[in-house]
Amino acid sequence: MSVLTRPIFEINLKNLLDNYLTLKKIAPHAQAAAVVKDDAYGLGAAIVAKKLYQDGKCRIFFVAHAVEGEKIRPVVPDADIYVLQGIGEDSLALFKSAHLTPVISSPQMLAFWKENKPNHLKPMINIETGLNRLGFREYELEALSTEDRQIFGAVMSHLACGDEKDHFMNQHQLDNFTRLKDKYFPHLPASLSASDGTFLGEKFQFDIVRLGAALYGINTAPYRQNQMKPVVTLKAPVLQVEPLPKGEFVGYSATYRAASERKISIVSIGYGDGVPRALSNVGKLFFPRGKKLYEARILGRVSMDNIICDITDIPDVSVGEYAFLLNDFYTLDDMGRDAGTISYELLSRIGKNPRKILNIINS
Amino acid sequence: MSVLTRPIFEINLKNLLDNYLTLKKIAPHAQAAAVVKDDAYGLGAAIVAKKLYQDGKCRIFFVAHAVEGEKIRPVVPDADIYVLQGIGEDSLALFKSAHLTPVISSPQMLAFWKENKPNHLKPMINIETGLNRLGFREYELEALSTEDRQIFGAVMSHLACGDEKDHFMNQHQLDNFTRLKDKYFPHLPASLSASDGTFLGEKFQFDIVRLGAALYGINTAPYRQNQMKPVVTLKAPVLQVEPLPKGEFVGYSATYRAASERKISIVSIGYGDGVPRALSNVGKLFFPRGKKLYEARILGRVSMDNIICDITDIPDVSVGEYAFLLNDFYTLDDMGRDAGTISYELLSRIGKNPRKILNIINS
Repeated sequence: MSVLTRPIFEINLKNLLDNYLTLKKIAPHAQAAAVVKDDAYGLGAAIVAKKLYQDGKCRIFFVAHAVEGEKIRPVVPDADIYVLQGIGEDSLALFKSAHLTPVISSPQMLAFWKENKPNHLKPMINIETGLNRLGFREYELEALSTEDRQIFGAVMSHLACGDEKDHFMNQHQLDNFTRLKDKYFPHLPASLSASDGTFLGEKFQFDIVRLGAALYGINTAPYRQNQMKPVVTLKAPVLQVEPLPKGEFVGYSATYRAASERKISIVSIGYGDGVPRALSNVGKLFFPRGKKLYEARILGRVSMDNIICDITDIPDVSVGEYAFLLNDFYTLDDMGRDAGTISYELLSRIGKNPRKILNIINS
Repeated sequence: MSVLTRPIFEINLKNLLDNYLTLKKIAPHAQAAAVVKDDAYGLGAAIVAKKLYQDGKCRIFFVAHAVEGEKIRPVVPDADIYVLQGIGEDSLALFKSAHLTPVISSPQMLAFWKENKPNHLKPMINIETGLNRLGFREYELEALSTEDRQIFGAVMSHLACGDEKDHFMNQHQLDNFTRLKDKYFPHLPASLSASDGTFLGEKFQFDIVRLGAALYGINTAPYRQNQMKPVVTLKAPVLQVEPLPKGEFVGYSATYRAASERKISIVSIGYGDGVPRALSNVGKLFFPRGKKLYEARILGRVSMDNIICDITDIPDVSVGEYAFLLNDFYTLDDMGRDAGTISYELLSRIGKNPRKILNIINS
């Protein structure tokens, strides 16, 4: 018997690389850029970028903030690093020191860039085609001088509904993008699609696809079986195994009451480790037994450091064994659904837990 | 006009210290321990522990994991650091090197401690009184030898419903704790209450109160006005100000459609920064104008890096100004409620964003 206390987060870089290579085949005519913003969705941007640079020959990376670009620069020495949130007073110095390329989304940001020109890299322009988020609107494109237009080295936009194959917005945005790009930037390399759009076929892929979520194993084309391999596993040790007498309550605010005698285990992980509190009384943990995978329902509230689960029907649960929260059969997408959110948000949280043990599988 | 891109998270250590001193007055006969687990709920355990040690004379700290204890040891050189999740093979070395004291919650963990005795500090025993989470059950206490009982230096338990003044569980757990403590550990210093229990009055306070959430400004006694000062502020720069034509959609999956022409701003923060995606179409951002604080409703989905909000009725919103997500009038408790969770989970997420700018107010 062991006694253990810390959760383990495992990243399979081999599967991540395989996902990158699979996606490349889906978009054979485009350059496959890797999106490693938000610390590679929590996995660790430097680790992920290094793997894709070295073994995947990836030479274009996207981050959200310049500080994220600075972190990966040492491991991708001659790659292009685009910064999606763009450039401002609070990030200018990093564009110089780390040779970052801003994505410019507004006339104000363009003016700032012109005044401060941090390096000789040509920025990318983001144009708005229907998401109504960041990007030049058509009236702003119209106001650009011929000189202004020549500042840019590439043009991009972003889909709102790329994960829904038949959503009318996809064609609508494709038409908008094609029209605006041809009108204002006919000679520039173009990028419309993230992972989801990449699955919509060649006409959505243009010159650069921006691969993020799918790299990490998320199904960004949920209308069909996931073609990506799972990349992360999460498990935590059982601290205690106890009877739960009939009529007893479990957890904060006493939200679960045992209608019959149960057996419970207390597992050393909680929302402080990124597991959503929304899984309270809803989520499940898994105990492998040979080829069988037993489910243990979460009882009561998920607390900051602990989860209590029902192991009444699971043979021989013992202190020190690991209960699985994410595995190849209950993935980020499954847990996201159970928690009432998306796997993107979930992964971004779980990866950021500084007290976990990090296991990296590299081959 | 400025162009800015990064969110700013501000921690007011002066208010945090004031909260500690206020709580001390509420429990004048108990020792006031500070709970800085989960990186001080995301604020940064070393920063918080140092302040409370130096200016608050705090000499007892609680963390969840030994790795968290190790991080604060340098700033609280002679304090007691209790580790709530206890000790195991994956943390043993840290108990030696950082002089940590385990909280022991099970016979298995006690056996492990006896075999490996990492230092000469007397562990605390956690006994279960109704939460049905970690802790010795009565049958396990009964099985302890007289020698075993003498191992411990203090005894604790934890309330399930301390934030509900009249909940029957409070008296139930108080009775259980008093009975078990008197029976098995009559001479040991005792601790039953976290912040919430501290507000339940002297009989719940015993010898040590464990102050966590309330230190950080959370109202742990929500049946009355918050007596704590707000400790955190969160703001993010406006990247763009744009018209939203009637009939247009906003954000992923097109979940918002403008029934009339609106004015929107795109703000540089998202769930990658810890803002819950559950605030999609529900939450709000704030724009101060003189003494007035204007509310801007979040439109569409919160995305990883951006939030879009409705500024139609707010005078002169400009690129580069900061929109407030948390301030003295819309606190963690308010945002937690809007996001369908509790402020504890929210704070734990927001604090862990590595790409924010951190501002510390110290006096």
